Amino acid sequence: MSLRFGILGAGRIGKVHARAVASTPGATVVAVADPLAEAARQVARDYGCSIRSIDEIERSEDIDAVVICTPTDTHAELIERFARRGKAVFCEKPIDLDVQRVKQCLRVVAEEGATLMVGFNRRFDPDFMAVKAAIDDGSVGKVEMVTITSRDPAPPPIDYIRRSGGIFRDMTIHDFDMARWLLGEEVETVVAAASVLVDPEIGRAGDYDSVNVILRTASGRQAVITNSRRAVYGYDQRIEVLGDRGMAAARNTHESNLEMALAEGFRRPPLLNFFMTRYTAAYANEIAAFVAAVRDGTVPPATGDDGLKALALADAAVKSVAEGRVVRLSEIVG
Amino acid sequence: MSLRFGILGAGRIGKVHARAVASTPGATVVAVADPLAEAARQVARDYGCSIRSIDEIERSEDIDAVVICTPTDTHAELIERFARRGKAVFCEKPIDLDVQRVKQCLRVVAEEGATLMVGFNRRFDPDFMAVKAAIDDGSVGKVEMVTITSRDPAPPPIDYIRRSGGIFRDMTIHDFDMARWLLGEEVETVVAAASVLVDPEIGRAGDYDSVNVILRTASGRQAVITNSRRAVYGYDQRIEVLGDRGMAAARNTHESNLEMALAEGFRRPPLLNFFMTRYTAAYANEIAAFVAAVRDGTVPPATGDDGLKALALADAAVKSVAEGRVVRLSEIVG
Amino acid sequence: MSLRFGILGAGRIGKVHARAVASTPGATVVAVADPLAEAARQVARDYGCSIRSIDEIERSEDIDAVVICTPTDTHAELIERFARRGKAVFCEKPIDLDVQRVKQCLRVVAEEGATLMVGFNRRFDPDFMAVKAAIDDGSVGKVEMVTITSRDPAPPPIDYIRRSGGIFRDMTIHDFDMARWLLGEEVETVVAAASVLVDPEIGRAGDYDSVNVILRTASGRQAVITNSRRAVYGYDQRIEVLGDRGMAAARNTHESNLEMALAEGFRRPPLLNFFMTRYTAAYANEIAAFVAAVRDGTVPPATGDDGLKALALADAAVKSVAEGRVVRLSEIVG
Amino acid sequence: MSLRFGILGAGRIGKVHARAVASTPGATVVAVADPLAEAARQVARDYGCSIRSIDEIERSEDIDAVVICTPTDTHAELIERFARRGKAVFCEKPIDLDVQRVKQCLRVVAEEGATLMVGFNRRFDPDFMAVKAAIDDGSVGKVEMVTITSRDPAPPPIDYIRRSGGIFRDMTIHDFDMARWLLGEEVETVVAAASVLVDPEIGRAGDYDSVNVILRTASGRQAVITNSRRAVYGYDQRIEVLGDRGMAAARNTHESNLEMALAEGFRRPPLLNFFMTRYTAAYANEIAAFVAAVRDGTVPPATGDDGLKALALADAAVKSVAEGRVVRLSEIVG
Repeated sequence: MSLRFGILGAGRIGKVHARAVASTPGATVVAVADPLAEAARQVARDYGCSIRSIDEIERSEDIDAVVICTPTDTHAELIERFARRGKAVFCEKPIDLDVQRVKQCLRVVAEEGATLMVGFNRRFDPDFMAVKAAIDDGSVGKVEMVTITSRDPAPPPIDYIRRSGGIFRDMTIHDFDMARWLLGEEVETVVAAASVLVDPEIGRAGDYDSVNVILRTASGRQAVITNSRRAVYGYDQRIEVLGDRGMAAARNTHESNLEMALAEGFRRPPLLNFFMTRYTAAYANEIAAFVAAVRDGTVPPATGDDGLKALALADAAVKSVAEGRVVRLSEIVG
Repeated sequence: MSLRFGILGAGRIGKVHARAVASTPGATVVAVADPLAEAARQVARDYGCSIRSIDEIERSEDIDAVVICTPTDTHAELIERFARRGKAVFCEKPIDLDVQRVKQCLRVVAEEGATLMVGFNRRFDPDFMAVKAAIDDGSVGKVEMVTITSRDPAPPPIDYIRRSGGIFRDMTIHDFDMARWLLGEEVETVVAAASVLVDPEIGRAGDYDSVNVILRTASGRQAVITNSRRAVYGYDQRIEVLGDRGMAAARNTHESNLEMALAEGFRRPPLLNFFMTRYTAAYANEIAAFVAAVRDGTVPPATGDDGLKALALADAAVKSVAEGRVVRLSEIVG
Repeated sequence: MSLRFGILGAGRIGKVHARAVASTPGATVVAVADPLAEAARQVARDYGCSIRSIDEIERSEDIDAVVICTPTDTHAELIERFARRGKAVFCEKPIDLDVQRVKQCLRVVAEEGATLMVGFNRRFDPDFMAVKAAIDDGSVGKVEMVTITSRDPAPPPIDYIRRSGGIFRDMTIHDFDMARWLLGEEVETVVAAASVLVDPEIGRAGDYDSVNVILRTASGRQAVITNSRRAVYGYDQRIEVLGDRGMAAARNTHESNLEMALAEGFRRPPLLNFFMTRYTAAYANEIAAFVAAVRDGTVPPATGDDGLKALALADAAVKSVAEGRVVRLSEIVG
Repeated sequence: MSLRFGILGAGRIGKVHARAVASTPGATVVAVADPLAEAARQVARDYGCSIRSIDEIERSEDIDAVVICTPTDTHAELIERFARRGKAVFCEKPIDLDVQRVKQCLRVVAEEGATLMVGFNRRFDPDFMAVKAAIDDGSVGKVEMVTITSRDPAPPPIDYIRRSGGIFRDMTIHDFDMARWLLGEEVETVVAAASVLVDPEIGRAGDYDSVNVILRTASGRQAVITNSRRAVYGYDQRIEVLGDRGMAAARNTHESNLEMALAEGFRRPPLLNFFMTRYTAAYANEIAAFVAAVRDGTVPPATGDDGLKALALADAAVKSVAEGRVVRLSEIVG
C-alpha cells in the first residue's frame, strides 16, 4: 500500500518535497499544512491533496508519515509530537540549533521507536553517490583526504543570515555531513578559519561569509571544507576523495553540454545556479529512500544521530574560530 | 482546458510518450490502444486512463489528439484517418518509407487543415537546442560546416533491421533532420559511403551498419554525418557547427560526473547508453511543444514536410551508394 | 659520429628544421643555403654553421644529409641530385604536384638506393602517436572509422593559394597521409565535396576553402576528413579512430591549462594558433626519426611512396569534385 | 654580452639548471663544480664547459653568476661567499632551514648589494603565470580564497626525508610561496593539521606525509594548501583563485591529449609524473628571468626575502601542529 504523507510547511523546500513525494511510486501526498493559505492551496492544487492544520494532520488516521519543512525553531517539537503519534518523520535539517535540545528530541524518538530521517539531500546526489560507491567498492583504497568545495551563487537575504545560526550551522552543516559520510571514521578534531569578504553586512550580523575548515579523525584522515557565500559562476559543489589507490572526484554540473569555440577562447555555460535545479535528482532519491526505509522497517540512511553529529561539528568550528585553536569534538558532545 | 490524448501503441516508444503526456501541464492521457492487452493495461494502470481500440479512439468525443506509436507501415493511414476526424496528430518518424505515400498523406493533412507533428525528438534535446540558439543569436556567425556524429551502442535485432527500411531511413534520418535544422538552407546534393563492418548478418539482410554522408546546400554549406550501429562506449550523439565567428558543439552526456584518477590514468563513466535515458528531456520537451502548437494554433516545430524532406535525403543517400555518385535532391522529390 | 646536415632553404620551415637538427643528439647543422642572404645569415648565426650555395653543398664532403625546404617546384630535381651524390634526403612535402614527376623521381631514388624521407610531421606529434599506439596495441580493436578534423586559423595569402596546387594537394594532403597511416589498409575510393565559404577571392583563384572527403578501403573501412581554411578559435587538429573495441581520440591543445569561471560561464584559452607552436614536438621527433633511420640503415617512417600515395589521393579528390562521383584510386595511379 | 655561469652541484637539479642556462639566449655555462667527478664530467660534456672546484669558480674572472644546487646546509655560506665576490647568485630553495641563519645571510647580501634569486620555479610555470595574470588584469576581481593542491607521485627515500627539515619546509614551502604570490597580501596567521597516512616509516623519522594548512591575511583573505607525499595518478599540481568577479584555475597536465572511449568508460593518461617533465618550461623561464634581472639591474622576481617568508610560514605550520592552535606569523619572524 502507498505511504500517505502530510507536508508540514508549503514554502520553497516544502514544495520540493511535495513534488518528490508525488513522483515517488508507493507514496502519496494526502494533506498539506501552512499558515499562508495561498502556499497551501498551490500544493493542494498541484497534487490533489487536502489542506489541513498541523493539529489536524497530527490526528489524521489517513496519514502515515510527515515531511517537516516548517521554520527551524519548530522542528524539534514537531518531531516529538509526530513521533509520539506513531508517524514516520522526515525532517529538514537542522533538528535544532542547540545540541542539548537535539539530544532531548532524539531521546523521545528513541523511546517511541519512531522512524526519523534528516534531510541531508547531498547523500542522494547521483554524482556524490558515485564517489561514495568508488570508496565502498575499494576503487580509491583506504581514504586519506577528503576535499569539499561548496559555494553558493550569492548570499541569502540578511534576515535569513540573522536567523540561520551562522554559516557553520546553516551552510557548512551539509559539508560536515558529507565529510563524515565519506571519511569512514568519526571526526576527532576541528579547526576553522572564518572571514567576512563578500558583504560587510554579514559581518555586522555577527556571521562570516568565507570559511575553511580542517577535520581530522583518530587515525589521521583529514577533510578540508571550503565555503563561500558567493561564486559568481554558479553553485559550486565539488567533492574529491584521495585514497591510497586513487582519487574519486565529483565534478560540477553545467547548465548544458554546449561548448563554444570563439576567437577569444572556448566557453562553457555557467553551473546550475540553484539548489533546486542542481539537486533535483537528489531530492527525489532522498524521499524514495525514506519511503523504502519506512516500508522495510530499516534504519533510514540519514538519522537523527547524523543530524546531531553534524551540528556538533558546526559548534566545534564556531568554538575554534572564537578561540583560535584546534577543538576536540569531545568538548562539544562530551 | 487540458488537451486529451489517445496513445496508439503501447510499446517502448509508446510508453515514453505516455509518460511525457502525463507529466506535461495542460495534457492528459485519456485512452490507450494496443493489440497486446498487457502493454495497454500497463499504460492504463500507470496513468489512470481507459483502454480502447484504435477505432474507438477515432470515434471518441473526449479525445483531442493522438500520439501514433504503431508499426511504421500503419503511420500514413492512421494520420489520414485521425486528420479527417479533426484530431491533432503527433506521429513517430517516419510517416512512411515511401516518398510518394508520404506526399499523398500530407495532401490529406493539408486538405483537412489538420495539425501534424513528426517525432524528431533531437530538435528538443537541451544541448542541441543550445547549439541551435547559438546559431540563431549570431554567436557562430554564418553557418559553414555541420558535423554530426551519431552512433548506437549496439545494433538492433536483425529482424528489426529487415523491416527498418535500411540504415539511412531508420537511423540517419534523425541526422538528416538535424542537418537541415542546423544548416539553415535546403540541401541540394547528397553523397554517401556505406560499409558492413559491425555484423555481416546486417550485410546479408541487404543493409549497412557504418555510413558517412556529405550534404551540400546551394551556397556551398556542408554537413557531414557519421553513423555506426555500434559504439562500445555508449550512445554517441554529438553535433558541431562551424561558422565564420566560431564553433558551437554539443558534447556527449556521461552516466555521471564522476572522475577517477588511478595509476593507469583518469576515468570517466561511459555515455548514457540508451535513447530513452539520453533523450528523456527531449521527449518531454517535444510533447510540450506539440501541446503548445495545438493550443496556440501555430505550426508545430517539426512538420510533415520536415518528415518528407528527411526521407528524401535518405532516398538520395541510398541512390548515391548504389550509383557511386553525387545525387541531386531534385532527382528524388522532383 | 654525428650526422652532418645541409639545410636547403632558410625560410620559415627551413628555420624550424634547422632548429630541430641542432637540438637532436647525433645531428649537426654544417651548412645552409638560401638565395636570400639575410635568411641564410640568421641560420648561420643561430647554429654556428657556414653559408654555401646548393651546388657547394652538393659537392661538400662534410655533408651527409640534406633537408630540402626550397619551393615545391624544385623538390624533385633536388632529391634526384642529392640522391645521386649519395646523401640522405629529408624533403618537405610534396615531392611534386604532378604524380608522374613524383614517380620518376622515386625511380631515381630507388636506383641510387638513397634514403628519402618526406615531411609528414603529424605522424610524429605525441598525441597522434598515442592514437596510433592505441591502434597498434589493440586497444581500439579492428579499425572501422577514422575522423580527421583539420582547420587552419586563417587562410594563407592569395599568392600562396595560387601556387599551392589547390587545397587538396596543399592542406588535405597531410590528412590523406594521416588517414592512410591510421586506417591500416590502402584506400580504394575517394569522394569529396568542396565549397568556397571563407573568401570569394580563393574561389576566383580556382581553389576551394572548405572541403569534406570520404575515403573507403577494400574491406569497407572509412575515413572522413573535414577541412576549412579558417577557424577563428585557433588551429583545430583532431583525430578520432573508432574500432570494434573502442575509440581513440586526440584532443586539441590549448594555449594553457587555465580555466576561468565567470558570471557568463567558463572559459579556456584558444587553441595553439600556429603550426610551428602546435607541432614543435612533432618537428623535433621527425628529424630524430630521420637521423635514426639513416644511422641504422632502416626505412624511414614516411617514405617517398607515402608522399606519392597522399598526392594520388589529392588528385582523386580533385577529380571527384570535378565529376561529381566516387573516384577509384586506380584511376589515378593505375 | 652573454652572462657567464658557474654551476655549483651537478646532481639532478643541477643538470636541470645547466640545461636551462645553456638554452637561454644571453647565457652560457662556463664551468661546473661537483665532488662527484662523473656528474661534473657529464655536464662538461653536454654543454662544452670546464670542470672547476667551487673555490676556483669563486676566483674565476670569467664567471658572472652562479647557480647553487649543492646540499641545503651549504647554501647560506655559498651565497655569502659569492655575494662578496660580486657575483650574481641563483640559489635553489631553501636558503637554510633556520630562520635566523637566513636572516644573517640576507644581511650580507644586502650589504654587498648583490643580486640573489631563490628557486621558486612554480612562479614561472606557464599555467600558474596565466592564473597570476588573471589576477593582475582584474579578471578574478578582489582575491578572496586561494586553493592549492600539491601531491607528489610517491614519497622520496626515507634518508631524504630525514635531512629535509620536514614536509612543511621541504614540500609545502613551494605552496607557501605560491600562496603569498597569489594572495596579494602578507599572511598573518597559520593553522595546520598533519598526519602520517602514506608510510609509517615517515612517522618514525619524525615527519608527516599528509597535511592541510589554512593561511589568513589581515583583511581575511584565506589560502588552503593540501599536500600528500603520494598520489598514484601522478604529480598533482593545481591552483584555484576565487575572487569577487570569478575564479581562475590551473588544471593539471596529462601525459598526452589522448582520450580513449571504451566499454568500461572514458580514459585519459595519468598526469606528468615528475617535477622535471612537469616543470620543464618553468625551469627555463626561471633562468631567463634571472638573466634578465641581472642584465637590467632589476629586482629578481623571487628574492631572498621571499625565501625567508616562505620558511617562516613553514615554521609557523610546524608550531601550529605541535601546539594545536592558530599561530601568528609575528611569533616566528618578530
